[in-house]
Amino acid sequence: MYALQEANLAATACQELIVGEDAMEAAVRALLVGLGEDHRREGLRRTPKRVAKAFRDGTRGYKQNVKDIVQGALFPEHGVDKRTGSAGGTGGQVVVRDMDHFSYCESCLLPFSIQCHVGYVPSGGRVVGLSKLSRVADVFAKRFQSPQRIADEVCSALHASIQLAGVAVALQCWHIPLPENMKCKSSQGWIRTSHSSRSGVFEGESSSLWNEFLALLKLRGIDMETDSHSAILPWCPLGPHEVPTCNGHAKRTTNGVTSPKSGSTPSSMVSAVTSMLQSLGEDPLRKELVGSPQRYVQWLMRFRACNLDVKWNGFTLNSAGVYERSCEDATDHGAIKSEMHLPFCAQCEHHLLPFYGVVHIGYFGNGDGKGIYRCTFQDLVNFYGCKLQVQERMTRQIAEAVYSVSRRGAIVVVEANHICMISRGVEKIRSSTATVAVLGHFLTDSCANASFLQNIIPAITHGGNKMEL
Amino acid sequence: MYALQEANLAATACQELIVGEDAMEAAVRALLVGLGEDHRREGLRRTPKRVAKAFRDGTRGYKQNVKDIVQGALFPEHGVDKRTGSAGGTGGQVVVRDMDHFSYCESCLLPFSIQCHVGYVPSGGRVVGLSKLSRVADVFAKRFQSPQRIADEVCSALHASIQLAGVAVALQCWHIPLPENMKCKSSQGWIRTSHSSRSGVFEGESSSLWNEFLALLKLRGIDMETDSHSAILPWCPLGPHEVPTCNGHAKRTTNGVTSPKSGSTPSSMVSAVTSMLQSLGEDPLRKELVGSPQRYVQWLMRFRACNLDVKWNGFTLNSAGVYERSCEDATDHGAIKSEMHLPFCAQCEHHLLPFYGVVHIGYFGNGDGKGIYRCTFQDLVNFYGCKLQVQERMTRQIAEAVYSVSRRGAIVVVEANHICMISRGVEKIRSSTATVAVLGHFLTDSCANASFLQNIIPAITHGGNKMEL
Repeated sequence: MYALQEANLAATACQELIVGEDAMEAAVRALLVGLGEDHRREGLRRTPKRVAKAFRDGTRGYKQNVKDIVQGALFPEHGVDKRTGSAGGTGGQVVVRDMDHFSYCESCLLPFSIQCHVGYVPSGGRVVGLSKLSRVADVFAKRFQSPQRIADEVCSALHASIQLAGVAVALQCWHIPLPENMKCKSSQGWIRTSHSSRSGVFEGESSSLWNEFLALLKLRGIDMETDSHSAILPWCPLGPHEVPTCNGHAKRTTNGVTSPKSGSTPSSMVSAVTSMLQSLGEDPLRKELVGSPQRYVQWLMRFRACNLDVKWNGFTLNSAGVYERSCEDATDHGAIKSEMHLPFCAQCEHHLLPFYGVVHIGYFGNGDGKGIYRCTFQDLVNFYGCKLQVQERMTRQIAEAVYSVSRRGAIVVVEANHICMISRGVEKIRSSTATVAVLGHFLTDSCANASFLQNIIPAITHGGNKMEL
Repeated sequence: MYALQEANLAATACQELIVGEDAMEAAVRALLVGLGEDHRREGLRRTPKRVAKAFRDGTRGYKQNVKDIVQGALFPEHGVDKRTGSAGGTGGQVVVRDMDHFSYCESCLLPFSIQCHVGYVPSGGRVVGLSKLSRVADVFAKRFQSPQRIADEVCSALHASIQLAGVAVALQCWHIPLPENMKCKSSQGWIRTSHSSRSGVFEGESSSLWNEFLALLKLRGIDMETDSHSAILPWCPLGPHEVPTCNGHAKRTTNGVTSPKSGSTPSSMVSAVTSMLQSLGEDPLRKELVGSPQRYVQWLMRFRACNLDVKWNGFTLNSAGVYERSCEDATDHGAIKSEMHLPFCAQCEHHLLPFYGVVHIGYFGNGDGKGIYRCTFQDLVNFYGCKLQVQERMTRQIAEAVYSVSRRGAIVVVEANHICMISRGVEKIRSSTATVAVLGHFLTDSCANASFLQNIIPAITHGGNKMEL
C-alpha cells in the first residue's frame, strides 16, 4: 500500500519534470519521496523551490569571475612600489581578518563554515579595495569544495588577477558532525580544520612576511600554528574513508542516538542528486565528487520518515525508563523535575538543511519519588528530532509525549541553530531560535514556568564559530 | 587661489548635474568639494557612486512591503490554536535571538548597529518562517530611524500582517561616538541603548509570556532589565541636545584629540544632504530629520582636509614632545621603543564612512635615553587619522613621520574596523583589517619586527557587538 503510494508520488514528480518544470526542483521532490514524505503536504510543497534556490545561490561561484570583481577597485597609492611583484616601498602588508563565509563540502554536499583571513603585499603602485578580498574569497567558497582547495584557489586567483607581491590565505573551517556525534556542548562535536596557502613574498621557510601575517592573526586570538586539527580528525564525517559500514540495521551508539534508519541509498535518490550536480554546472565524474551523491543521500536517509505512530510507545512512569529516586530526592512531592541540554540534530523540512541544538524538559513528578532516566528523554528527543521537522512542531510533540506520562504538567524549551538561517538567505550567523511548549500546570502556574527557565544554565557562546550554539 | 579652485570644482560638480547625472552622486560630489577635496583624484573619483549606492541600499526599507515578505512563509501547523489572537494550544512562543542588523540614525544620518531579538506567539493555526522575522526587522531597520521606533514598527507590522497572538521585540543598539570620545578600548566609547516593544499576549505588567521572553534572552546572556543605558547617555552624540557649541576654533579635549576643525557648516553642503534625503524618498521636513543634514555635515567637517604639508612639522627628538628617560630605561641603547593602542577614527575616502581602531608604533631609540611622549604620538595619529583616508596610506604616513625623527627605523601597525565592510556591501560584521608599514632597520631586521609584534597585547574581542574592535 505504502509502496504503491510512493510509486504514484514519484510518477507525479517525473510528470512535472516532463512538462518543463525545473530539473533541480524535480530532483528535490524525488528526494522527498525517497525519504518517505508526501511532497504535497503543506510544509514540503515549496521545499523543492527553496532547496533548488539555496543550492543555486550556494554555488554561484561557478558563474563568477575574479577579474570582474577586482576591476574598478584597484587604487593607485603613493608609497607602494611601482614595480610589479616587489614588496618595496614601506613593504607593508594588508590583512583582513575574520571574514565569515560558507561553502559546500564536495564530499557530502552539506554546507560548512569558514572563517577566512587574507593578507597581501601590494605592488604595481596600487592597493585593492578591502571588500574585494572578501568577494574573491566568496567566488571560491560558493562551490562544492574542500578547505585546502579554497585556500589555494583564493591565493592564486588574487595573485594572478591583481599582480600582487604576494598573497597569504588562512582558513579555519568547521564541518557539521554526524547527528550521533552531536554533543551537548555542540562545539565539541564539530570537526575543525585549519588551512593556509601563500604565494610570492610570503613563500619560503623563513619568510618574515609570513611570520608577520601569523603574528597579526594572533592579535585576534587566531593561532594557525597550534590550531591545526587536520591531522587528528578526518574532515568530512561522511567522507570516503569515514563512512561507517551500512549494514541495513539500526544501531545505537554510546550516547543513545539512533544511527541510520536504513543503510540503503535508493538509486533513484542518488540519480536525483547527480542530476542536481549537473544542473549546477558541476561534473559528477570529477574525482572528488564520485560517491558524493551517495553520501548526501546517506545523510538524508538518517532523517527518513519512520511512519511510526506519533506516540511515545508504551512509555509510562512505571516503564523501564523510570528510576526510583534516592532518599534525598524523596521529599520532592510535586516539585519540578528536569532534564536539561539534551542534544539533537534535525533536518529543516523547509530547506533540507540541519538545525541542531539542545532540548530542555521540565515536568511535575507524581509525588511517588519516581523519575525518568535521562537516556529515556534522549531517546524521545531522538525520535522527534531525527526527521524532517520544524522546531515549533518538534517542541510541541516532545511536550505532548512528556505530558502523556506526567499528566500534571510538562514544559519543553528547544534552543537551536538553523543552518538555513545562517548559511543562506538572511545569513544571520549569530542567530539562535528558542521555542517553548507548555502543558498542564505550566500553562497556569507562571512561577513554575519561571523557576524552570531560571534553572537552565546558559550555553557558552563561542567566539570562534557562530554556527555553534 | 584655493577658493578659486574650490569654486571651479563646485561648478564642475553642478555641470555634471545639469547633464542628467544622478542627483545623489552630484550631492556627494558637492560634499567632497565642501571638505576641501579634489573630487577628481583617483581615490575619490567613484566615491559619489559608491556613497549613493550605500545610501540607497541602506534605506531600501522605504520601498519594501511587509505583506510581500511574509506571504508564502506562513505554514499551517497542527497544535497551534486556530483562533486568531489566542495563545491556546501548547501556548508556546517562538523567539529568534541575536539577529544583526544596521540602520541609519535619523539624527545624524550615520549607520548604527542593532542586535535584534524577536518573539511571537503563533495563532490562526499557522507559524511563520523564521527568516521572515529577520526580513521584516530589516524593512524597518533599512531607513533613517531611532531605535525605539524600529522596535515599535517591527512589533506592530508583524502583529498586523500575520495576525499573531502577540509579538515581543527587543533591540540592543550601538551608536558610534564622536571621534574625540573614541577610547583605546573602543567598546567604552560606543553609545549603547536597549529598547523593547510588545503587543497582544506580551502586554501588561504581569505578562508571563513577556517574562518568559526575557528569560529566553537571558539564556544567550542578554539581560534587557539591567541592560538599559538609555537613561544615562544620550543616544546620538551629534543629536539636537548634544552638539557641542561650535565656536570656529579647533580645541583639544582631555585625551588629546583635536575637535572640529571648523564649526561652520557650509550651506551648500547642508543643501546637498537635504537633496540626498529627498532622492531617497524621505521628507527632510519630517520633524525628526530637521537639523539632521546639518549634523551630518558637522560630522563630515571633522574630517575636513586641512591642506597642511604632509610633514610632522617641527617635530624632532629634541623638540617639546621628547622626554628624558628615567634611569631604568637609560640602558636601552638601540632597543625598540613602542607606543601601543593609540586610538583613532578616520573617514574612509571610498565610502564616506568611519573606520576606527588603534595604532601601534615602534621605533629604535637613538641611544641617548630620550623617547617620545605618548601624547605626541597621539597628536600624530590624530593628524593623519582625522581626515578622508585609506588605512594603507595612513599607516605609511605615520611610519614616514616617525622615521623622519627616528632614522634608525620605524614600524607602524594599524588595526581597524571599517563600517564600509560591516554595515554595507559584503557585511562582514566580525572583520577587522590590519596594515603594516616598516622603514629602516625594521625592513631588514625581522627579529626586531617580530619582537615588536609580540609585545602588542591583543584587543579583547567583544561578543556583544561586532562593530567593536
